[in-house]
Amino acid sequence: MSSFRVELKKVVDDSYDIQVGYNLQNQLLDDIKSGLVGNIKKFAVITDSIVKDLYAEPINKALVDAGYKSQLFVFPEGEKSKTRETKSIIEDEMLANQYRRDCCIIAVGGGVVTDLAGFIAGTFGRGVPFINYATTLLAAADASVGGKTAVDTPLATNLIGLFNQPVKVYLDIATWKTLPKRQIISGLAETIKHACLADREFFDYLDNHMSEILELEPEACEHIAETNCRIKYEVVMKDERESGLREVLNLGHTVGRAIETESGYELMHGEAVSIGMVAEVILANKLDLLTKEEVTQVISLLKKAGLPTEIPAYIDRDALVNRLYTDKKVRDGKLRFVLQDGIGSIKEFEPGVFAKPIEESLAREVILEMK
Amino acid sequence: MSSFRVELKKVVDDSYDIQVGYNLQNQLLDDIKSGLVGNIKKFAVITDSIVKDLYAEPINKALVDAGYKSQLFVFPEGEKSKTRETKSIIEDEMLANQYRRDCCIIAVGGGVVTDLAGFIAGTFGRGVPFINYATTLLAAADASVGGKTAVDTPLATNLIGLFNQPVKVYLDIATWKTLPKRQIISGLAETIKHACLADREFFDYLDNHMSEILELEPEACEHIAETNCRIKYEVVMKDERESGLREVLNLGHTVGRAIETESGYELMHGEAVSIGMVAEVILANKLDLLTKEEVTQVISLLKKAGLPTEIPAYIDRDALVNRLYTDKKVRDGKLRFVLQDGIGSIKEFEPGVFAKPIEESLAREVILEMK
Repeated sequence: MSSFRVELKKVVDDSYDIQVGYNLQNQLLDDIKSGLVGNIKKFAVITDSIVKDLYAEPINKALVDAGYKSQLFVFPEGEKSKTRETKSIIEDEMLANQYRRDCCIIAVGGGVVTDLAGFIAGTFGRGVPFINYATTLLAAADASVGGKTAVDTPLATNLIGLFNQPVKVYLDIATWKTLPKRQIISGLAETIKHACLADREFFDYLDNHMSEILELEPEACEHIAETNCRIKYEVVMKDERESGLREVLNLGHTVGRAIETESGYELMHGEAVSIGMVAEVILANKLDLLTKEEVTQVISLLKKAGLPTEIPAYIDRDALVNRLYTDKKVRDGKLRFVLQDGIGSIKEFEPGVFAKPIEESLAREVILEMK
Repeated sequence: MSSFRVELKKVVDDSYDIQVGYNLQNQLLDDIKSGLVGNIKKFAVITDSIVKDLYAEPINKALVDAGYKSQLFVFPEGEKSKTRETKSIIEDEMLANQYRRDCCIIAVGGGVVTDLAGFIAGTFGRGVPFINYATTLLAAADASVGGKTAVDTPLATNLIGLFNQPVKVYLDIATWKTLPKRQIISGLAETIKHACLADREFFDYLDNHMSEILELEPEACEHIAETNCRIKYEVVMKDERESGLREVLNLGHTVGRAIETESGYELMHGEAVSIGMVAEVILANKLDLLTKEEVTQVISLLKKAGLPTEIPAYIDRDALVNRLYTDKKVRDGKLRFVLQDGIGSIKEFEPGVFAKPIEESLAREVILEMK
């Protein structure tokens, strides 16, 4: 018997820039001409059926006009497309069109597009570079930092995928004007969550500028896009050293995800998270972590953004509690909740522990108390 | 417009051990007990329908007996199973059996199993650790170093996958005795290729010990398993710095892959590579890189191993040349060939360039000249 050591220690640099601004199509083209992806001359623009005509086709055309080989790959919009089947269909279309290892993928769209295209890029030819051109507030808040890509399967959400970092991210705020109002508002839930967990000043900014934000006033939009990235980045970066911190991003999500499912996806993700945040501030107050006044401030900001803060009448509260406490994450009858201990601050229960196990009776009390 | 830099520079250590020996099941169990995969208590043993009863079930049982949660995931043997569909089926089975991010995958089998299981491990829960327990000579020669994992698609072989390093590789030579003779011999083609491209001494060893190898004499088997790993490792490692060297592993494969396809997969991969190597030594001789005597020595060793060295009569030579020169890799009517300039040495045409573009007429001359 003998043993042989394969030494594979190396420095990996996955750093990248996030550019925030208006109408960044020309910037993208200039960056590619200046060597953003080296000598690559072949691009696959992946998008969904809604974003295609609005933003993806113009980007594709600009690339073709500039002499690059570029082609659109379009799938039907919506979370239901975020599957292994859609991934296979696009891979086969790319292969049939002679795409091999020497290409770059450009994702143009919201979170579903960037999740799916980033995953495709990670496994096509064992990995080709990709660029995210994000066209939604939620992508700005969520999909631009962290490198998470994935698809859904019948049995699990986001469990098949990989960590894959883009070469560059563009947050084109001009695209937000074509988003349905409801989607903008839903995206604001993650923005408010970020403020609640990390930045009191940003919370006050949101409180003072909500009308400008809802009217998509340029300066306000740019500020929230940037701040979302910065907060997410600081959390994700610190987590590389002290594992556990990333969990704070689950603020509002424990109850939120359960409500989203119980609503049969009638509620959008952000809407459900908003209601989930109300549950968590009430719980934090019961545990003497938040004052009544702070609870009111959070609920008031969510309302100001136009987000729901009450459990819809059609959702059975017992079924909701039951769903929570039959979750796979339940340990010894308890479920872990991330909790604020102030606005802009998360309670660290022990060094590196940012969640508290809560028994079913207390969670039920909170849910029943909610409007 | 503003820009935000995401800094993601870090040291990654993917180093691992390859253990070569007889009946390494207990060693595997001891390693797991000693923390090879940290605190993980849940294992998914992925294997094929042939290896299942022989080696995978005993490993699974030993894990269960030792108090771990472990379960077998079996797919029908053969290259035809190396697909996205098989990957999905196994993922769904794992999810249905409550496997989440806290598991480790153990691949027990040959190259198809390690390729597929390594790919599954790379995307399950965005990446879980995996262990390769290789039961074929080809896996020893090929699948244990380099981190390549992939599946085939209708339009391309090995083009959907990722680089993913195992936590440890076990090359259990005792398993070779259950391999069909033809598969052992086919596996020897890659071994001879390694000798031809990097190690004259190893070439002589193979020449002097071929009968012991074919009788699976322990010492000889251990020596070739180790040497295969070492040569592949040296090539792959050097390539991390000077890109291009890895191409030398294509020795014999340019013509080999075309013959494999033209045979309708009647020929096993190693058999086709053997014939491809004959083509390449004849070509190298025409270019004054190899002497007639060296050509004879290579062909003689291939024959001694029981490998085919002639193009089967049922393969049309014109169709073969045509397939070669309509390949996507053809540039300006030329196809690149890796060539030896001695036994155990590859010609470096320019610094970092290990292949020479060859025009169709010369390749045709070689193919027509072959037996």
